[in-house]
Amino acid sequence: VGNGPRHLKLLGLALVAALTGCVMAPLRGTGDLGVVIEHAGAVQVIDTSTRRPIARVDGLGDLAHASVVYSHDERYAYVFGRDGGLTKVDLLRGRIDNRIVQTGNTAVGAISQDGRLIAVANDRPGGVRIFDAATLAPVVAIPAVYGSAGARSRVVGLIDVPGDRFVFSLFDAGQIWLVDTHDRSRFTVRKFRDAGKQPYDGIVTPDGRYYIAGLYGEDGLALLDLWNLDAGVRRVLPRYGRGEEKLPLRKMPRLDYWSIGNDRAYVPAVNRHEVLVIDMHDWREAGRIAVAGQPVFVIARPDGRELWVNFAPPDDDRVQVIDVLTRQVVRTLKPGKGVVHMEFTPRGEACWLSVHGENRVDVYDTTSFTRIDTLAADKPDGIFFTARAHRIGQ
Amino acid sequence: VGNGPRHLKLLGLALVAALTGCVMAPLRGTGDLGVVIEHAGAVQVIDTSTRRPIARVDGLGDLAHASVVYSHDERYAYVFGRDGGLTKVDLLRGRIDNRIVQTGNTAVGAISQDGRLIAVANDRPGGVRIFDAATLAPVVAIPAVYGSAGARSRVVGLIDVPGDRFVFSLFDAGQIWLVDTHDRSRFTVRKFRDAGKQPYDGIVTPDGRYYIAGLYGEDGLALLDLWNLDAGVRRVLPRYGRGEEKLPLRKMPRLDYWSIGNDRAYVPAVNRHEVLVIDMHDWREAGRIAVAGQPVFVIARPDGRELWVNFAPPDDDRVQVIDVLTRQVVRTLKPGKGVVHMEFTPRGEACWLSVHGENRVDVYDTTSFTRIDTLAADKPDGIFFTARAHRIGQ
Repeated sequence: VGNGPRHLKLLGLALVAALTGCVMAPLRGTGDLGVVIEHAGAVQVIDTSTRRPIARVDGLGDLAHASVVYSHDERYAYVFGRDGGLTKVDLLRGRIDNRIVQTGNTAVGAISQDGRLIAVANDRPGGVRIFDAATLAPVVAIPAVYGSAGARSRVVGLIDVPGDRFVFSLFDAGQIWLVDTHDRSRFTVRKFRDAGKQPYDGIVTPDGRYYIAGLYGEDGLALLDLWNLDAGVRRVLPRYGRGEEKLPLRKMPRLDYWSIGNDRAYVPAVNRHEVLVIDMHDWREAGRIAVAGQPVFVIARPDGRELWVNFAPPDDDRVQVIDVLTRQVVRTLKPGKGVVHMEFTPRGEACWLSVHGENRVDVYDTTSFTRIDTLAADKPDGIFFTARAHRIGQ
Repeated sequence: VGNGPRHLKLLGLALVAALTGCVMAPLRGTGDLGVVIEHAGAVQVIDTSTRRPIARVDGLGDLAHASVVYSHDERYAYVFGRDGGLTKVDLLRGRIDNRIVQTGNTAVGAISQDGRLIAVANDRPGGVRIFDAATLAPVVAIPAVYGSAGARSRVVGLIDVPGDRFVFSLFDAGQIWLVDTHDRSRFTVRKFRDAGKQPYDGIVTPDGRYYIAGLYGEDGLALLDLWNLDAGVRRVLPRYGRGEEKLPLRKMPRLDYWSIGNDRAYVPAVNRHEVLVIDMHDWREAGRIAVAGQPVFVIARPDGRELWVNFAPPDDDRVQVIDVLTRQVVRTLKPGKGVVHMEFTPRGEACWLSVHGENRVDVYDTTSFTRIDTLAADKPDGIFFTARAHRIGQ
């Protein structure tokens, strides 16, 4: 009988090892994956086809208001934490691939058009740091130094734009900077001074043409036409802002969930229960739509026909749907306490909602408005699907 | 010693089997994959990050002018062949997952918004057949019957639109049909008669709102507003067409590579060395741009700033790049004989060209216009990247 049993045991172990490897990381596409941020420092990796979690990854630090971008192959999520953590999560293996704590404070980052660089905006010390997307090795640091005394500004509104460039705003300096990384041996920075008082957030239009910064220190928006840099920054929508009110910064609408398309931008009014309609030809207000509370995010279904709007407390238990043709609220959903984030599947057949206060993620059918699924989650916040990998200004 | 050697052999075989499985199909994301169609019935699976082929799959039948759509997870390519073949290719395993020859003649298909149905347009017998995307099992056949004699029309311009619907045109009947598959137990068909004489191709605008059919039997285009179906089909661009000329159908511009965005459509003029600019607010011609030959495809870089144009013979050895701001040709590339297809990477940093007559696929950097790579291919035709999985009207 000799070695028989030992060989059998070895055979068994080998098979178990091989099979475990397969079970841990089955062969699968990544186009229908995504992550749900949980406040306590974890992400759930979810499958939007089966509408089930496939892994939970923790140890990511402080993820309050964390944001996420994706590698071109849609395998890796880069998670930017509040504590300066930059974590590269392997969605297929369901584990951390790499993690650094790059500096004291961030939550915003971007990936270059070519997918090879990750940029992170920092408050303390103010500046942008750029890392190699594959290894997270530091590539360059761009301190946000301004004025003659060498002060450093907090950086906001960092975003990627075509040509392997990054654009961002300097809150304390009132400037917008454009970094060109196309030539890896020679990065260049172009600075636009006097962009406006205290830019607090920024976005780029979906085509990558216009960079828009919201202003806290004065009314209006700063607009930079990336197709015509020599024209410099101009001011648009002169009445958009807090006016004479003493609003805290956290009450200013975030711009990164403005909805822009078909010549129209739909944006939360400041401190009012309204969605503003902006005509993007002349950047003027073209209407107002009354809604159930102070809008937080106004997001367009991918086909642009409808807008889904969530609200600040105490109206954060509901979501309203607006038909852009009639500008009427056509549906009011009441998912539950603390609807803090919404994300459409790439082709718009479903919308996923983080119902923070109920520890749930709900999935709605966008044709019937019925809830078709729900997933347990621990204080869920942002939801980010891998299709973002393919978009400019992720 | 007994069973020892046999167990060792078994152990070896088990390990080889397990490892072979891994080597054959390594764990990887699918967001940066794509296929290149080869005329002889094969597809090359390519990786747009490394710019190398990862597999070649043959046995797909007649692939002249074949088209491709993708599953939501970006793992499977559905290839529609000229011979009625519908082949589901597993990109990760580099092999055919399933294949049927569904009828005598096609090359055009679509995938429903929810990813669960595949629709195929057929000429003989004329109609649309719908299959289960997972199994390719037949779900329903929609014969394109028209008139009182029960004749069947050839079907063209089949495309998916929001709401799990498909829209297509009946060449012989002059009709446009809209099939709603949202309720799997009860498909409905809405027919728009008198849509125009001999619609020969169709597209949907990127937002999924307008379906546009080109007309061979008369001038003008047929336009259906999917947001307002009761308005029916109306005629736009009344002078667009062959006029009094006796052009063969194959000389009519294909609509599926019109470039549409930012209120403008850029389309090949019929039988002229010009690109037409159309104002999409009033659907009128807003300009003409002189180019080097009869344009075939006019495709916009994903950020919309530039158009890349290829040409019919004898000018099919070159590609021209147009700046949409100045409407000038800013670059003329000469890749070689028979540039038949172009595809941008999703975020636009590169453009892949099929140089059919030279048995090559060339990759260009869109910022510097330099050729950064080249791949051997056997009479390459269409190039299709997986990012199409996330788009309406793939």
